[in-house]
Amino acid sequence: MIFFRSDYSQGAHPDVLEALIKTNAEHTDGYGLDPHCERAAKMVKDFIGRDDCGVHMMVGGTPTNVALIAAALRPYESVIAPRTGHIYIHETGAVEATGHRVVAMNGVNGKLTPELIDLARDEFEDEHTPLPRLVYISQPTETGSIYSKAELTAISEKCKEKNMLLYIDGARLGVALTCKDNDTTIEELAALCDAFYIGGTKNGALFGEALVIFDPDTEKNFRFFMKRQCGLLAKGRLIGVQFEALLEGGRESAFYKIAKEMNRTADRLKEGLKALGTEFYSESQTNQLFPVFTKKVKEELEKDFFFHQWAPEKNGKVPVRLVTSWGTTDKEVDAFLNRVKELTK
Amino acid sequence: MIFFRSDYSQGAHPDVLEALIKTNAEHTDGYGLDPHCERAAKMVKDFIGRDDCGVHMMVGGTPTNVALIAAALRPYESVIAPRTGHIYIHETGAVEATGHRVVAMNGVNGKLTPELIDLARDEFEDEHTPLPRLVYISQPTETGSIYSKAELTAISEKCKEKNMLLYIDGARLGVALTCKDNDTTIEELAALCDAFYIGGTKNGALFGEALVIFDPDTEKNFRFFMKRQCGLLAKGRLIGVQFEALLEGGRESAFYKIAKEMNRTADRLKEGLKALGTEFYSESQTNQLFPVFTKKVKEELEKDFFFHQWAPEKNGKVPVRLVTSWGTTDKEVDAFLNRVKELTK
Amino acid sequence: MIFFRSDYSQGAHPDVLEALIKTNAEHTDGYGLDPHCERAAKMVKDFIGRDDCGVHMMVGGTPTNVALIAAALRPYESVIAPRTGHIYIHETGAVEATGHRVVAMNGVNGKLTPELIDLARDEFEDEHTPLPRLVYISQPTETGSIYSKAELTAISEKCKEKNMLLYIDGARLGVALTCKDNDTTIEELAALCDAFYIGGTKNGALFGEALVIFDPDTEKNFRFFMKRQCGLLAKGRLIGVQFEALLEGGRESAFYKIAKEMNRTADRLKEGLKALGTEFYSESQTNQLFPVFTKKVKEELEKDFFFHQWAPEKNGKVPVRLVTSWGTTDKEVDAFLNRVKELTK
Amino acid sequence: MIFFRSDYSQGAHPDVLEALIKTNAEHTDGYGLDPHCERAAKMVKDFIGRDDCGVHMMVGGTPTNVALIAAALRPYESVIAPRTGHIYIHETGAVEATGHRVVAMNGVNGKLTPELIDLARDEFEDEHTPLPRLVYISQPTETGSIYSKAELTAISEKCKEKNMLLYIDGARLGVALTCKDNDTTIEELAALCDAFYIGGTKNGALFGEALVIFDPDTEKNFRFFMKRQCGLLAKGRLIGVQFEALLEGGRESAFYKIAKEMNRTADRLKEGLKALGTEFYSESQTNQLFPVFTKKVKEELEKDFFFHQWAPEKNGKVPVRLVTSWGTTDKEVDAFLNRVKELTK
Repeated sequence: MIFFRSDYSQGAHPDVLEALIKTNAEHTDGYGLDPHCERAAKMVKDFIGRDDCGVHMMVGGTPTNVALIAAALRPYESVIAPRTGHIYIHETGAVEATGHRVVAMNGVNGKLTPELIDLARDEFEDEHTPLPRLVYISQPTETGSIYSKAELTAISEKCKEKNMLLYIDGARLGVALTCKDNDTTIEELAALCDAFYIGGTKNGALFGEALVIFDPDTEKNFRFFMKRQCGLLAKGRLIGVQFEALLEGGRESAFYKIAKEMNRTADRLKEGLKALGTEFYSESQTNQLFPVFTKKVKEELEKDFFFHQWAPEKNGKVPVRLVTSWGTTDKEVDAFLNRVKELTK
Repeated sequence: MIFFRSDYSQGAHPDVLEALIKTNAEHTDGYGLDPHCERAAKMVKDFIGRDDCGVHMMVGGTPTNVALIAAALRPYESVIAPRTGHIYIHETGAVEATGHRVVAMNGVNGKLTPELIDLARDEFEDEHTPLPRLVYISQPTETGSIYSKAELTAISEKCKEKNMLLYIDGARLGVALTCKDNDTTIEELAALCDAFYIGGTKNGALFGEALVIFDPDTEKNFRFFMKRQCGLLAKGRLIGVQFEALLEGGRESAFYKIAKEMNRTADRLKEGLKALGTEFYSESQTNQLFPVFTKKVKEELEKDFFFHQWAPEKNGKVPVRLVTSWGTTDKEVDAFLNRVKELTK
Repeated sequence: MIFFRSDYSQGAHPDVLEALIKTNAEHTDGYGLDPHCERAAKMVKDFIGRDDCGVHMMVGGTPTNVALIAAALRPYESVIAPRTGHIYIHETGAVEATGHRVVAMNGVNGKLTPELIDLARDEFEDEHTPLPRLVYISQPTETGSIYSKAELTAISEKCKEKNMLLYIDGARLGVALTCKDNDTTIEELAALCDAFYIGGTKNGALFGEALVIFDPDTEKNFRFFMKRQCGLLAKGRLIGVQFEALLEGGRESAFYKIAKEMNRTADRLKEGLKALGTEFYSESQTNQLFPVFTKKVKEELEKDFFFHQWAPEKNGKVPVRLVTSWGTTDKEVDAFLNRVKELTK
Repeated sequence: MIFFRSDYSQGAHPDVLEALIKTNAEHTDGYGLDPHCERAAKMVKDFIGRDDCGVHMMVGGTPTNVALIAAALRPYESVIAPRTGHIYIHETGAVEATGHRVVAMNGVNGKLTPELIDLARDEFEDEHTPLPRLVYISQPTETGSIYSKAELTAISEKCKEKNMLLYIDGARLGVALTCKDNDTTIEELAALCDAFYIGGTKNGALFGEALVIFDPDTEKNFRFFMKRQCGLLAKGRLIGVQFEALLEGGRESAFYKIAKEMNRTADRLKEGLKALGTEFYSESQTNQLFPVFTKKVKEELEKDFFFHQWAPEKNGKVPVRLVTSWGTTDKEVDAFLNRVKELTK
């Protein structure tokens, strides 16, 4: 069975695993209060060229989103997100579990726009409505698309205009930064938002995300939120160790190399499918692809390949999701393409 | 100043006030455990011709909605509502404050449909998404429209098909039941849902709503939810006394008479405005009207009349809301019509 | 049946009812945005001789406590209260429903002390523990005792020392201010805390409490909390009207007169019971008394009198609660005393 | 620096690390839906000799406690715990964040008793109080003591009598099961409760806890709670892999060996300290010790050893906590004992 199921179907990238092995016997304090987390935080700051922020090593994406949002908002405030956003469709209402509404807007190819933010704000009238105070977007989006620098800038300015904070979920930030269409550096992205995170889980780590908070009110006492929202690992240094391994070398780091490789295999897959005349459910620029197959072809493919059905069957056609991972090989990609070719010729 | 601000801008209808005065010196137990609440509950059961339900005297609409929804759902379950529903736009996220998502769907003239319920359900995949388990609608809707018996039946059947409960917010139930277009009796409405309430606040009471729960799992230990969600009044008998006064006489009761009168004055206002060529923002069948005036006309009207701007100005035109109340007189209606006539001729 | 069940077993004091009748036909805006609420707030400010505060007309005690606490605390902060405090024993965990811990301390005759506050604070270590940030006390306590000025001052100073806010639940504030043992004026009490409320429900109103907030961070956007925590009444002016009636006349107001009368009949009852050799479960200084009867005497008394059993039977003895209300008469008190005399001679 | 800071100051026990390395390149589905988690769950069931339960691989102790408690309780229900329990003192109110009260009782040497449970239940009266429905205890307790079989049985029977569930936090279950004083097998412990977990983090894993749920209502749809309360890891198989490594071999497994070794070094430390005349703050039977040193001795020790101050200094004496870990050596223990000897002779 060949996996295009997700970017987290294997363990850690060898560089990351090596670091975990090497540091395994060390004794450190727990809960992220250790030299590895400290050094990793320093590396993150160097990576983005900023020092005016808090950096927190979080155990996973959902606790990161939930802790950040809970820390940023007063109880009656809400967060605006695309209806395809991770906090809306894939976190079982964990944000609402903290009492906050996610104001879901039908995005454009998975993306929010200043106009959509205005529309969401127009629903607010006075103390009878939750007050939108935070905008949540993902770079790349859940459907693989990326915001251009111009788009990010427009959203950032809209947030400032409306006295809202901007938070960017970077679960797959690596593939956004390294994909062909990207025109935004991480320094630029950081400058446009009030908080964002660099995803490790989907970029070669066993787990772990590095959350960066610029907004001082959100940063204040943030560790209480980490613990309370279950984002704090007892052996927290494990996350620090992994980010040290990922970020070492800056633009030449494992973080970038892994991301580039995922994009490269995804591009090979996309181009191959296009050459075979496959249609796509939505346009992706990164390592998630959403081809549409007939029900029969899909069922045949499932005999050898493991992937995710993305949306319900409609008129005999099924959108699926293919994801490349740090371990995806050209051979695996080609096997898939060959099988599609056989099935659709 | 003449008020078309809301259906709760005056105190109680004289019949209700009289009952409060007459019973004022009585001693009873608190928190709704008194003979008046007991008798009112019995009257509600007779009113709907059902005995297999709990009836609770609640202090207001928001605690009623919140307590009912909190009691009906497990933590990971969500409620589907029209985007114009009261729980979405006018309760400051009180439902989300209990941890539940309100899945907001763009309704058709303020109404949900079976198709919209299907769409909302399609967002659910597995344990990564909140599970829609309750459908919330209002009769009449927030924009004055009413569901026909056929529409209510279709929604009710869709809920059963999808193993969901149906809850009907009846804050203004009286005007729905007594408006010209209505084809659903209260017995029929009750038979189609798992819970609903008969609104008092907007139908001549000082405050108070009579909540009826058919679903036994929701009814179980419901008084804990009443207290916890701030819907339980210390002098709870006040609500019982008011519903006794409102419901006495069944179809000839004050409840129906007040509602009919609100519809009558609203109809007079609507017909008058139509005759003057006024356009409307949305079609209403009950005691809320949504005419559109030019900014200038609206500002002139505000000198003598108090009403609510409904939506932002657009191209110089402003949708407003006019509501008739138990005390609205023909004279007040005619004064408004005359002024519009002067301003628009 | 004669009621010593609670201080809210009848309707409104005649002065309050009169005001409601007189203003019933007036049209005003809803949700407390009306001239009566405005004037009542001004009267409260005059009453306490302060202008640097927000005053809010709340529908009942539980939503008042919950909204205030939710507004005062960040999510990870907790409130310290006596284990007999209303928020701990009589609100069904409504405070915890907003996510905040109530740190319950075994009080001394129902009262907190600076030492108990220190003990509660010592449980706090770092971000692994909720941070106590608010102290909740009631004046009088749930068991009828009152804090002296020296005790209130010591608690207030302890709060300042520990960077905590002090909130005083004044559900029965009237009887505290007017009882024989009291040495604290309302101005002094106000000066010692960050928020408190003047209880209406238990002091002659149909319902309603006047919440006073000095802490500016808590006051900011407080109306969102009122709505979200179900403390905002649609016909909010009803609370304003009642407080106008209660507070008119300052020290000679109905508020003080009603409270004094409740204390007078309670004193008559207490002295009478003491003369009959009745023992008491706890010492009260206000209108709640906690005599202990044998099971047999208690059951005999229940044939003519309605009251509350306070604690489980122990060794054949049962602590009960007797409460005098605005309508309690000397005749009712004497009837009770005579019956006890007959049963215990 | 020698660490007696915690039982999680190093990485994974070599057996566990080896398993992670060996399986690193495998592709599996995410979120615990993989063959390793399945096999680990089967091994847990064999380990306890039961098949009528759900077994879930959770990322850490706090999400385990929170998800279990949230799944077990209706919103108005509460959990009884010792005041030293982990959910009360070390989880930042994460349980209260789900809306549930933790009813904290002053335990006896860190332990609850049937009498304390009765006391907590006596606080419950009716719908004005949260309803205690779950009892939370830890085996061993936070202060290192263990419940005897007789004590566990008595608590279990009390829970049944009062219609409450019993949940046992087994963060350090290994050392309880293998300490000298223990008289309860894991099969017996499992039979006495409705849910418990086998702790991995503090018993040689990088992280991970295996939660076992017998109560069918709690088990139903539990995966929603795992995700919603941030206890579900994307690469969930990592927890399965670790528990496979830990539990392989039953009574001869790494799980037991690691635990025994932690107890052995702790006993060596305890006996050594006793021989030196050190007094203890509380009696421990497992791998956490609570000696009391003078302030001066404590400060000297801190130059070479890293440990945790347990309680505030009192009269010049400071209780500290020493914990042995899977990697603790006799040499480290003896170094500590020698230094104490030098400092206290």
